[in-house]
This record gives sequence, C-alpha cells and structure tokens, in this order.
Amino acid sequence: MAYTFMQTVTLIPGDGIGPEISTAVMRIFEAAQVPIQWDERNVTAIQGPGGNWMIPPNTKESMDRNKIGLKGPLKTPVAAGHPSMNLLLRKTFDLYANVRPCMSIEGYKTPYTDVDLVTIRENTEGEYSGIEHVIVDGVVQSIKLITEDASERIAKYAFEYAVNNQRSSVTAVHKANIMRMSDGLFLRKCREAAENYKDIKFTEMYLDTVCLNMVQDPTQFDVLVMPNLYGDILSDLCAGLIGGLGVTPSGNIGTNGVAIFESVHGTAPDIAGADLANPTALLLSAVMMLRHMGLHAHAQRIQTACFNTIQDKRVLTKDLGGNAKCSEFTAAICERVQDLD
Amino acid sequence: MAYTFMQTVTLIPGDGIGPEISTAVMRIFEAAQVPIQWDERNVTAIQGPGGNWMIPPNTKESMDRNKIGLKGPLKTPVAAGHPSMNLLLRKTFDLYANVRPCMSIEGYKTPYTDVDLVTIRENTEGEYSGIEHVIVDGVVQSIKLITEDASERIAKYAFEYAVNNQRSSVTAVHKANIMRMSDGLFLRKCREAAENYKDIKFTEMYLDTVCLNMVQDPTQFDVLVMPNLYGDILSDLCAGLIGGLGVTPSGNIGTNGVAIFESVHGTAPDIAGADLANPTALLLSAVMMLRHMGLHAHAQRIQTACFNTIQDKRVLTKDLGGNAKCSEFTAAICERVQDLD
Ligand SMILES: CC(C)[C@H](C(=O)O)[C@@H](O)C(=O)O
Ligand SMILES: CC(C)[C@H](C(=O)O)[C@@H](O)C(=O)O
Repeated sequence: MAYTFMQTVTLIPGDGIGPEISTAVMRIFEAAQVPIQWDERNVTAIQGPGGNWMIPPNTKESMDRNKIGLKGPLKTPVAAGHPSMNLLLRKTFDLYANVRPCMSIEGYKTPYTDVDLVTIRENTEGEYSGIEHVIVDGVVQSIKLITEDASERIAKYAFEYAVNNQRSSVTAVHKANIMRMSDGLFLRKCREAAENYKDIKFTEMYLDTVCLNMVQDPTQFDVLVMPNLYGDILSDLCAGLIGGLGVTPSGNIGTNGVAIFESVHGTAPDIAGADLANPTALLLSAVMMLRHMGLHAHAQRIQTACFNTIQDKRVLTKDLGGNAKCSEFTAAICERVQDLD
Repeated sequence: MAYTFMQTVTLIPGDGIGPEISTAVMRIFEAAQVPIQWDERNVTAIQGPGGNWMIPPNTKESMDRNKIGLKGPLKTPVAAGHPSMNLLLRKTFDLYANVRPCMSIEGYKTPYTDVDLVTIRENTEGEYSGIEHVIVDGVVQSIKLITEDASERIAKYAFEYAVNNQRSSVTAVHKANIMRMSDGLFLRKCREAAENYKDIKFTEMYLDTVCLNMVQDPTQFDVLVMPNLYGDILSDLCAGLIGGLGVTPSGNIGTNGVAIFESVHGTAPDIAGADLANPTALLLSAVMMLRHMGLHAHAQRIQTACFNTIQDKRVLTKDLGGNAKCSEFTAAICERVQDLD
C-alpha cells in the first residue's frame, strides 16, 4: 500500500447545525480520499485565571500543532456574557486576513450571474478595536484604530492573493474623504503595495460608490481589499448577490500557514439535528482550505461535485429549493466525487 | 388676479451639470405653476478671518431667511484644499436628518421591482466627527462620536417620518455587537423612541445582515434609521437597486423647518454644458421639498409627470436609455405637467 502523508486538521464542528454539516464534510472528504485526518475540538468560552475570556487550552494546542482549522457556526454570545468566540479565534491566532470568494453558482437562481470576486478584509483592528469610552454623560466614543503594519500586511496579502489566484485587479475600498488620517493611512499602504505588483491593476474607490456599483454590476469587480468593518459589510452584501451565507465560503488567514476556514452563517437552531441543513458553505470553506494546503486536485474535484449537484437540481436541501435531507444531498455529492475520480 | 403667497427658496445650482439641471427644475416648476420663487446663490468655499472654511455669507443669509434650499452637485474638494462643502452645509445649518426615499420607477429596468423604502441617516456625528489623531508613528485613530441627544433626535425623526408618511415599520441598523457602547447608545435611543410609537413596528438589525437581505429582497424594508456612515453606505446601495444616483432624491432636514434638498450624484464634468444631463434626481429632490413645504398637490403632479415620462420611454436622456437632450426630456415633463392640470 502506498504511503500517503496525512496532515491533521483541527475540526471545530460548532453549535446548532454545526455537527451535521461537519459530518457531511467529513463524509465527502472520505469519498474524495482527501489525505487529511481530523482532530475534533470545541470552543466553548472559558474564563482564564485573570477573568479574561479565552478558548479552551486543548483547542488552542490543537490549532498550534495543526495550524489549520475548519469551523462550523458558533452560538452568538448572550449580551451579558462572553465576547464573540469568532472574534476571539481571529485574535488568538492573529488571523489578519478574512478572505471571502463570491462566485455565482450555475443553476442557482439569483438576480445576478457571473459574479466572481473576492473580498479581503483586514481582520484585526479598525472599528473592531474594542476601545470605547463614555466622555461625559450621554457622549460616547468608539475608536477606530488603523496601523501602518496591519495595513501594509493586508495590502500585500491582497496583491499576493491576486497573483497566486490569477486575478487581474485589486480595488482598495475606503472613506479617506471622511476619515482622512485613518483610511488615508490604509489607502497609502495599498498604493505602496501596488507599486510592487505592476501586473495587477490597482484602483481605489469609496465604500459607498462600491456598494452602489456592486448592486448595479458586480462583474466589474475582482479582488477588493478594505478595513475591518467595510469588509464585514461588503462581504455580506456580496454573499447576498450569489445566494446568501448558505453557499458562501470564508477563510481567516494568519502568518506561517495558520488559517481557520469557516461557514459564516448562523447555527439555525430551529432545524438543528433534523438532518435538514445545507452543508455547502462549510464544504466550500473546506475546499478553500484544501487549496491553502496545496491539495488543489482534491479541492477542484469536490467543488465540481458540489456545483454539479446544485446545477443538476435533483437532490437539493430546502434552502436551495429542493426537499432532500442534508444526508441525501451529501450522498449525492459523494457519488459525484467518486464518479469524477 | 388672485393673490398667491409666494415662498422663496434658496437655489444653489452647483457645479458641472448643476446649472442645466437646475434650469430644468425651474422650467418644470413654472409649467406646474408652483407658487415659489428662487433666490439663486453659490457655495464657493471661502475662508473666514480665522482661517476657518465657511460658505459665502450671502448664501448663509439667504438660507437663514428662506429656510429651504435646493442644491445641485458640487465639485469634490481637492485633497489639499477645502473641506467638502456638502458636509459644511449640513453642519452650518445643523441638518441632522438625511432622508433618501428609494422607490422603483416603473418602466426603468433594474434587477429589482417594487422597492419602496426610505433610509434615514444621522447626519451630524458618528464617523464624520472629523476627530483623528496620530497616536505614535504608524498608529492612527479616528473617533466615532455618538451622543444621546443626536441619537434621540434622529430616532424620533424616523418614527415621526413613518407616521407622517403612512409607513408601517422602522428598522434600526447597527453594529452594537461590535461597538457596544456607541452603537449600543444609538440603539437604546431607538428602542426608547419606539415605545412612543406603538403603531409602528420596530425591528433592529445588524448592518451586515441588512446589506445581505437588502440585495436578496429589498421589498422587506420600509423605513431604516442609522448612524452617519451606515447611512452613507446603505443609501448608496439602495440607490443602486432602483437605478442609481441619477434618479434618487435626497433631503437634509434640520430644526424649525430648515432643510436642503439635493441631488447626490456628481457634477459629470464630461457632459457639463452639453444639454445631456438627466435632471431627475434634482427634480425628485425638489418634489420632496414641495412635500416638506406642504405643497402636496404640486409635488404629486410633478412626480407623476416625471414617472410617466420615464415609463413612456419615448423621450429619455442617454443614461436612462434614450437619446433625448436634457431640454427635450424637460419639455416632455412640462407638457405632461400641464396635461395633468
Ligand atoms: C459574528 C460577528 C462578530 C462577525 C463580525 O461582525 O465580524 C460576523 O458578522 C462576520 O462577518 O464574521
Ligand atoms: C460627498 C460626501 C462627503 C458624502 C458623504 O460621504 O456623506 C456623500 O457620499 C453623500 O452621501 O452625501
């Protein structure tokens, strides 16, 4: 028997429908004979000795060891309780780039066709600094923090991504007409990075203009790079164009190969455990993960099997317009994966 | 001859195509026998004794006297130069509510139909505070300022607007999961206002979720109220859904009846003076103005004439898909206005 090097990936199934869609992905990976094994962990919020919220140490160890994670949806923190574990994960592993490719799925009807763009969001600072104060009674300030280092890093990442993924243009999205110093710094770093990538077309555009143009003709966009909050907004807008969070993958990229790929939809507690969930977003996130790991052939095969299953329309989950169970949709993809061998 | 009380409105034609589209509006108002007269002014940026940028004193006097203004597009300030005169106008007259109704125009093809919503944007603070600092080299902060007073005022305005315009719901748009204190304060004030308007349905939604849902089905929204930057983004997104800034009106509302209505598109220097501009956005802004002044019958008549002309498709400017000149499109509307008498 040939020896295949098996890389281990930390799997965080998450809450609600998380376990079901994780099982679906594992089945499809098995059918595709992907040479990875899973190290299953959870990210229940726990409080450290100093009262600081943290992710469970054994999950952290697993990620430190494996470097790569795949994550299902997590319960939103209750108002009074712990912070968002999604944000805590990004912070703990310094996952500075949030990457969301948005590609129209043939056969899945939306008002738009031929969308094929990628939002790249700075994931560590900006409006998400968490620094807020009451100045006087009734006057509150939130601080948006933009640093040269983080801006430079994300700008460079966007251009590298463009080069490595045969993309031809990068658009920096900003409001430097209003936030002249902070967005101005971000924009300057994008311009500087552009200097080193003469083959990639660089443009800059106001966030409001991007939103307007995006809904009028999304095919004009390619790679977009932007500060944290703008990425939060624009990535959801773009997900809406291609059918929503149920079909949109996401990756959080750090340094030295560290990365967590995740579906960004909710936990759908109303259908959890009922075998009705759509595993597409998590599966396509896992496909992004395979590409990140250099397993391109496996990635392509699984993606094709998934898209073909959707295009074929015979076995679809309810949200995709069918009445198949999650397990049936999964089995249909497995079959195609094997046929594509 | 019957005596009609003529109210005076400050007209700021603006730059580029501004004068042409202002002329178009004046013609149509004349054809509709609207009982107002114009006091034409400009808002060239000038520097006061202390070096502070201000709008020309005679324009300020005109607005102080007339209270109501109609404004065309203004040149964007050069990077090194003066601040945005649009922002300075909002500030000078404390125009705290930016109101943008987005309504699908029958016969004008866009991917969406039956859009009928209104974005209400806090227009004085938030991310537009203009307060920024360099903390240390390479680290910049911008301050988002949210006050109880401004939040209360805009929340109340949104509900009053809903009541006065036969609207049934108000959605507060926020990111209080991230900016807990600032957006939290804004949201609290919306909730408090909602208490006093039991007949209007109140919902709250994250900005990213609104963007996603908006492009999937805009008809689910009615009145939306939000902090400054979110309004900048969302109003442009919504304009995109119904055909762009060329057909979207806007009003900036202050206290004691003070208000400036404006087209929010650019100055289109490439076609300025060529009689090719589309006056629709300014005209519909003028229609909003008439409603604000209580001239409802005139408003309705002009709006109908404009919509019918577009629907009819025979005389349209280029951006609307035709090849008529601005003056021809204007004449077509004038004719219809008279027929509707
Ligand atoms: C879960 C939430 C804190 C998060 C965000 O605001 O970044 C989400 O909207 C996202 O885009 O991943
Ligand atoms: C002109 C510009 C400063 C302005 C803004 O950012 O508010 C514009 O985009 C708007 O929406 O009126």
